[in-house]
Amino acid sequence: MWQLLQFPLCPFSRKVRLLLAEKSIGYQPVRESPWARRDEFLHINPAGQTPVMIDDEAGIRLIDSMAICEYIEETGDKPAMLNGSAADRAEQRRLVTWFDTQFYREITGPLLMERMEKRIVHRQTPDTRVLREAMKAAVEHLDYIDYLLDHRQWIGGATMSLADLAAAAQISIADYLGGIDFKTHDLAKRWYVGMKSRPSFRPLLAERMEGVPPPADYEKLDV
Amino acid sequence: MWQLLQFPLCPFSRKVRLLLAEKSIGYQPVRESPWARRDEFLHINPAGQTPVMIDDEAGIRLIDSMAICEYIEETGDKPAMLNGSAADRAEQRRLVTWFDTQFYREITGPLLMERMEKRIVHRQTPDTRVLREAMKAAVEHLDYIDYLLDHRQWIGGATMSLADLAAAAQISIADYLGGIDFKTHDLAKRWYVGMKSRPSFRPLLAERMEGVPPPADYEKLDV
Repeated sequence: MWQLLQFPLCPFSRKVRLLLAEKSIGYQPVRESPWARRDEFLHINPAGQTPVMIDDEAGIRLIDSMAICEYIEETGDKPAMLNGSAADRAEQRRLVTWFDTQFYREITGPLLMERMEKRIVHRQTPDTRVLREAMKAAVEHLDYIDYLLDHRQWIGGATMSLADLAAAAQISIADYLGGIDFKTHDLAKRWYVGMKSRPSFRPLLAERMEGVPPPADYEKLDV
Repeated sequence: MWQLLQFPLCPFSRKVRLLLAEKSIGYQPVRESPWARRDEFLHINPAGQTPVMIDDEAGIRLIDSMAICEYIEETGDKPAMLNGSAADRAEQRRLVTWFDTQFYREITGPLLMERMEKRIVHRQTPDTRVLREAMKAAVEHLDYIDYLLDHRQWIGGATMSLADLAAAAQISIADYLGGIDFKTHDLAKRWYVGMKSRPSFRPLLAERMEGVPPPADYEKLDV
């Protein structure tokens, strides 16, 4: 059985967990707090980031969320989450990187620092200027998602793909941390409600990070 | 014919160009300066980053260097640069991400800002503190490369792979900008001299960025 080193608000682990669930691959979540910079963990992954996926019996250690997703795509069963033509898959991969990099850097990353790490590690109050910037960036990203969904059925193209999982993973963490307001973003909202309703998503929404409660409507399917 | 939007000191474009050359795929380099934030370019790639690879006849636009490399792997001929078992490929991809992300963030990115962008765009002098930090980080990364090469033949494992191209691409730009000193890093140095000697690499080493000359020994194969 795979072990997945992760913590409840890690957006990259969430992307991998959604992919595993969509493919019905079982795994055991193992709690790892990257900010603790545990020696044994840094020895496994010098980048110090979750997720890491381990099969000790098979002697396999997978590191880096995109490398893990590509591995799952290569070895797992259908449905393919990088699908269509090679050019279609390139567009899906572009958008995975967009959410993992741009969205994370501008929104999820700052929110995790201000509303989780400062609270549970540094015992500091959040910097309201940083929060405001993140929420402003979130509006721009929702605009972009609206634009994409105005031209195509799903985030990455005509089919559901890893791009949808990556986007929903980042948004769900930003939403947990109070950084998302779907107001005036009807297409993005309808798409996200659809993602939230998937069986792969429900268990993640039920998880909580100790000391960091989500907003009241975080789990609701109609907002 | 592919067009590749890039500039001479873009490490991500260099990784793609090495891959194209290793597979003997022809392309036409087209100069794009991401810092100019040209409207037409941002319209093609909202992330504002090079490289972008375009085949106008086929109507294909590939964006994001890793998505481009995966496309080339999927559609191009041998040699496979993501090779071996699925777990081997995951390790190769992990190291591509390591160099594209960690090495770039700590070394190539700061060097490009201080020694290229400040000079040619902002007309400022480099911040010596930032340069010192980048060079200190470079020593740590060369230590890690030595460690990897002490346990395996190539950066990503038993065979040459995209991990070697990604690493060599980042190192060659850092070296162009005077940030690399191989002293005491014999394994890393021997590996890099081997990479530099490849036919795929020679044309890149001959290129110059206007206004930013490289150190005297940049192109030499014995340093």
